[in-house]
Amino acid sequence: MSKIKVGVYGGTGYTGWELIQLLVKHPSIEVAAVTSERMAGTSLSAAYPMAPDLPLVSVDSVDLKLLDAVFLCLPHTHSAKIAMQAHAAGLKVIDLSADLRLNTPQDYETWYHVPHPAPELLPVVYGLPEFNRSQIAGKSLVANPGCYATAMLLGLLPLVQAGQIIEDAPIIVDAKSGTSGAGRTPKQQTLFSEVHGNFSPYSIGRAHRHIGEVEQQLAMAGLQAQPLIFSPHLLPVDRGILAAIYVQVKDAQQAANVIQTAYSHEEFVTVLPDGKLATLAHAVRTPDAVISLTPSAGNTLIVMVAIDNLMKGAASQAVQNFNLLFGFDEACALRGSC
Amino acid sequence: MSKIKVGVYGGTGYTGWELIQLLVKHPSIEVAAVTSERMAGTSLSAAYPMAPDLPLVSVDSVDLKLLDAVFLCLPHTHSAKIAMQAHAAGLKVIDLSADLRLNTPQDYETWYHVPHPAPELLPVVYGLPEFNRSQIAGKSLVANPGCYATAMLLGLLPLVQAGQIIEDAPIIVDAKSGTSGAGRTPKQQTLFSEVHGNFSPYSIGRAHRHIGEVEQQLAMAGLQAQPLIFSPHLLPVDRGILAAIYVQVKDAQQAANVIQTAYSHEEFVTVLPDGKLATLAHAVRTPDAVISLTPSAGNTLIVMVAIDNLMKGAASQAVQNFNLLFGFDEACALRGSC
Amino acid sequence: MSKIKVGVYGGTGYTGWELIQLLVKHPSIEVAAVTSERMAGTSLSAAYPMAPDLPLVSVDSVDLKLLDAVFLCLPHTHSAKIAMQAHAAGLKVIDLSADLRLNTPQDYETWYHVPHPAPELLPVVYGLPEFNRSQIAGKSLVANPGCYATAMLLGLLPLVQAGQIIEDAPIIVDAKSGTSGAGRTPKQQTLFSEVHGNFSPYSIGRAHRHIGEVEQQLAMAGLQAQPLIFSPHLLPVDRGILAAIYVQVKDAQQAANVIQTAYSHEEFVTVLPDGKLATLAHAVRTPDAVISLTPSAGNTLIVMVAIDNLMKGAASQAVQNFNLLFGFDEACALRGSC
Amino acid sequence: MSKIKVGVYGGTGYTGWELIQLLVKHPSIEVAAVTSERMAGTSLSAAYPMAPDLPLVSVDSVDLKLLDAVFLCLPHTHSAKIAMQAHAAGLKVIDLSADLRLNTPQDYETWYHVPHPAPELLPVVYGLPEFNRSQIAGKSLVANPGCYATAMLLGLLPLVQAGQIIEDAPIIVDAKSGTSGAGRTPKQQTLFSEVHGNFSPYSIGRAHRHIGEVEQQLAMAGLQAQPLIFSPHLLPVDRGILAAIYVQVKDAQQAANVIQTAYSHEEFVTVLPDGKLATLAHAVRTPDAVISLTPSAGNTLIVMVAIDNLMKGAASQAVQNFNLLFGFDEACALRGSC
Repeated sequence: MSKIKVGVYGGTGYTGWELIQLLVKHPSIEVAAVTSERMAGTSLSAAYPMAPDLPLVSVDSVDLKLLDAVFLCLPHTHSAKIAMQAHAAGLKVIDLSADLRLNTPQDYETWYHVPHPAPELLPVVYGLPEFNRSQIAGKSLVANPGCYATAMLLGLLPLVQAGQIIEDAPIIVDAKSGTSGAGRTPKQQTLFSEVHGNFSPYSIGRAHRHIGEVEQQLAMAGLQAQPLIFSPHLLPVDRGILAAIYVQVKDAQQAANVIQTAYSHEEFVTVLPDGKLATLAHAVRTPDAVISLTPSAGNTLIVMVAIDNLMKGAASQAVQNFNLLFGFDEACALRGSC
Repeated sequence: MSKIKVGVYGGTGYTGWELIQLLVKHPSIEVAAVTSERMAGTSLSAAYPMAPDLPLVSVDSVDLKLLDAVFLCLPHTHSAKIAMQAHAAGLKVIDLSADLRLNTPQDYETWYHVPHPAPELLPVVYGLPEFNRSQIAGKSLVANPGCYATAMLLGLLPLVQAGQIIEDAPIIVDAKSGTSGAGRTPKQQTLFSEVHGNFSPYSIGRAHRHIGEVEQQLAMAGLQAQPLIFSPHLLPVDRGILAAIYVQVKDAQQAANVIQTAYSHEEFVTVLPDGKLATLAHAVRTPDAVISLTPSAGNTLIVMVAIDNLMKGAASQAVQNFNLLFGFDEACALRGSC
Repeated sequence: MSKIKVGVYGGTGYTGWELIQLLVKHPSIEVAAVTSERMAGTSLSAAYPMAPDLPLVSVDSVDLKLLDAVFLCLPHTHSAKIAMQAHAAGLKVIDLSADLRLNTPQDYETWYHVPHPAPELLPVVYGLPEFNRSQIAGKSLVANPGCYATAMLLGLLPLVQAGQIIEDAPIIVDAKSGTSGAGRTPKQQTLFSEVHGNFSPYSIGRAHRHIGEVEQQLAMAGLQAQPLIFSPHLLPVDRGILAAIYVQVKDAQQAANVIQTAYSHEEFVTVLPDGKLATLAHAVRTPDAVISLTPSAGNTLIVMVAIDNLMKGAASQAVQNFNLLFGFDEACALRGSC
Repeated sequence: MSKIKVGVYGGTGYTGWELIQLLVKHPSIEVAAVTSERMAGTSLSAAYPMAPDLPLVSVDSVDLKLLDAVFLCLPHTHSAKIAMQAHAAGLKVIDLSADLRLNTPQDYETWYHVPHPAPELLPVVYGLPEFNRSQIAGKSLVANPGCYATAMLLGLLPLVQAGQIIEDAPIIVDAKSGTSGAGRTPKQQTLFSEVHGNFSPYSIGRAHRHIGEVEQQLAMAGLQAQPLIFSPHLLPVDRGILAAIYVQVKDAQQAANVIQTAYSHEEFVTVLPDGKLATLAHAVRTPDAVISLTPSAGNTLIVMVAIDNLMKGAASQAVQNFNLLFGFDEACALRGSC
């Protein structure tokens, strides 16, 4: 059987490189093109010391006719343009940017402050396999969820579906991410000298863009208008997200059971036994989300969700989506053999 | 004028050593005794590479008659016994352990699961100078607050005093501390190999002992029964605490103003201007608490409080208390000259 | 074909756990016993959050008759005793401790300051596959090299074999290791609070025990008496070794070529092209040694060798040795399929 | 007495900010101007969270007539131009860049690959107070040494002066620096995600520019042509340098004594007692160099030198030089009162 030829757009960022490391393990994939505007003409090994010698090309020099699918690890607004071309050329598209995550151009403009570059593509299925597995299977475009959004939604969606969340009490998410989430483009605030020994919140309250996609998905699952308060922080580690979700529920123990049951057969979501708490170390360098549940005072349930921002928060989730799009075992290239 | 002779009990822990570094800068203090059971007979320089050659002695060999005051940096239950002896001998006592923080032996047993070792000493003034300055001045015993408790109370007490907190909504505190808060005694969970690249919650919900002293102080300030939910985490940094407090208030902007005003003349509490967020780097290696205020959706106020757990969370606050007990400028040895 | 039943002694240390993660990927191995004196009766998952539920037993309760091979990740002196029993019972033994590395009981006593616990086992083949591959194949006992020793020998042995090293000039090795090399037993000097922001040499000059096995191997390869000066340092990272070797050679460029050629067909040793320098990131979490060569002033060749102390410095090298002992592809369970 | 008005050029880099923190403690200094091209028009507090509100101005808007002295924390080539103007205007100049460190324009061009921007200023006294104290006192221009150069010269100069170094054996320096040495300008290789968990050599052998100034000073002290081999590495810490110097001497114990004696009365150089090794933690956040001496095999002396790259390697050494230029106690603003 001939392999599926995939292109990785934006292959020299942290997400692109993480993704390529997974794709080369996939027995049915051939990585046929990797783009980088800045490093076009060189090889991936120039960007990462132990990377293979995959040639890097500019976006313009990719011949879409030679590809079957593309993974887009580009900045938002850039991504949608390629998605449109690839879609028109009949390729399957997995977009890891934010461009296809919101259902309407209006919502996109609200959160990203620019007009949507390809409104005719919307809406696109939201690639959270644990909830949208069957819808993803038949599609040609998938919007890969944001890293923080993945952590929040895995903690909250089962509660919404079960009608457990108390209306009108705010949902509070205090989340922490490693620095790879901020990308590989040099910025003062992600220099080692600035981050070492430090810990800093940013865009707290209602400011972070992932709120848009999270609230959209919660609403689609049935949640009535409910203020989501989200405080991201920059951790002095390179990778990993830990989100602490404080949610008011009808019955904290029942709500915990709901989450436990929701994931009992999921390959990539582990709910820890009572008394164990999810930590970054549970999830880093794995394709897994690891969840712990702590019913607390009154009606508060504390849900801790740990993921690797580059894996379940980006690259391994993209591979889950690829496998669903093409009919492979969802875990192929992620766990065991396939 | 002859100097005040002080003893530091437990001088080789991180808090003891931090305290000694402050005390030697105090023009009216002579560090006359430093205890360490494990290292008695050696010198402080054997415990810390650049420490002065202060001799270390065992608790039993200290002659209290030669001292004017003691700082107790001992484990709980050990501390109260020395406090009792020193108090009986007419010394001023600043206890950095938890032994004197709760007003009743019952509360102590609730949170520490052992009978109080010196119930006759209770209650003792709670050494949070920004709120109890005048009560501390005349006393001979002071209970130095816990590190997390200091951060929480600085964020919450002005709101309680102003009647801003909405009853029956839980107060949620998601706090993060550096590893020095766990002490210098070797434990697997604080090994570098375990903490590096990791981030982990512990004792979340209603489990951490500092809840006892915080709820006591909030109640004394007038807060009605209110569930406090507290999630401490271990950060991969050596020092510093950042507490994110999510509190439901009557008016988020007014509540922010209340806190701003409360600290407008405080030497060791800085409230950042609108739009700036408190980070660990603001407070580490300083005697300051740094606070930021973010009114958010609905009635939620997000209060970020940054302190150095070894300074405002322990040693520099103890020096503030010492200065109050003895009538010195509260900032003496902490800022500028005195 | 029935699987080879192996026991891992000392399975809860960092090396034991790293090894088990490799062994469970080996298609011909069944991990039939894992020992831990301290945690016997519990499961490996109690020691590491995401470990499988392998039961932990005490050494005394292992039935050697049910095993085909043992990996010993025990402290020195403990290891040789089990090696003796397992050898007598007809099992293959891969000893990751220092007990079988030195050829004579006298050398052992010189470097370890205790009599050898099982002198009748000596000498044992030194399990550095790149140099002793053929001798390992037929044996039943293998001494797995020390982590620092692996790095030093990979850098020096080709030069000795080629007669490139100038007699009587000292060989200087300035090496740096992550904290996992110091083990998981709690010690003050490996606490996060002590290591973070720090960098410290230890046992420098002629003090470190690995000098014994390195000089033995260099002498066996033909090096005349030559002072080896070795300065290990503790790095604030969890894993990885980078050794900078400064050696006086007859011709620096020729000497570089000798090393390049020596490893041109080695699966687990990569020599970087001119101008690239080996870093920790090249080797961490891989079974590879990565080497760079910098001819410098006069006759000095600078050889940088990067390995992961837990992998090529311990566990993955042990798997290479296992594969050689049992006639599998040397890379089985380490790279690709087998 | 009116204060000395100083200007700090390049006040928003790590060195500039470190320097300003020292200068504001100096009782005879008024920081009258701070420049930053990129942030001119804002205040220092915009660059560092807890900095004072010193206005930032562009170089062009400084009126040199209002100043008595300038500290130049600018990139090389930029610095010399200001030095020339300030010198012409009669100000004292302490240049922390490399521009004034080499005695001849030829040497400058050899190491910096550009013509010297102000050759008429050369040669300038080299501001290593422990060796050039008396020459500095009367001057108006001082070249503040490089950070690595300071560490190397403090370890080597006493040996050269005593004639202890054996001719023709290479001097090997394996040095490690925190990331602040690479400056605050964003670069990919100093991003947190790149440095965390990593350790990497760079410019090893004969490539690093500090070799030029070190060899110049060693030659001026009497060392015959001798190859210096220097391997700098980037450590995953924010600040501090540890240099391991391996030098062949006539008598290792005597050579150790020479260094011990050389610094017996120096305020800012501590030689540790036998058996103690210098670590980063000895020196970080202090104005001190801390040295340990380990005579080893044959004629090798291992000299470990720890400094803070931003303090003794830059800012605190600049303050020593200022104090010498103006006749203050050399320790003023660095230790104790003045």
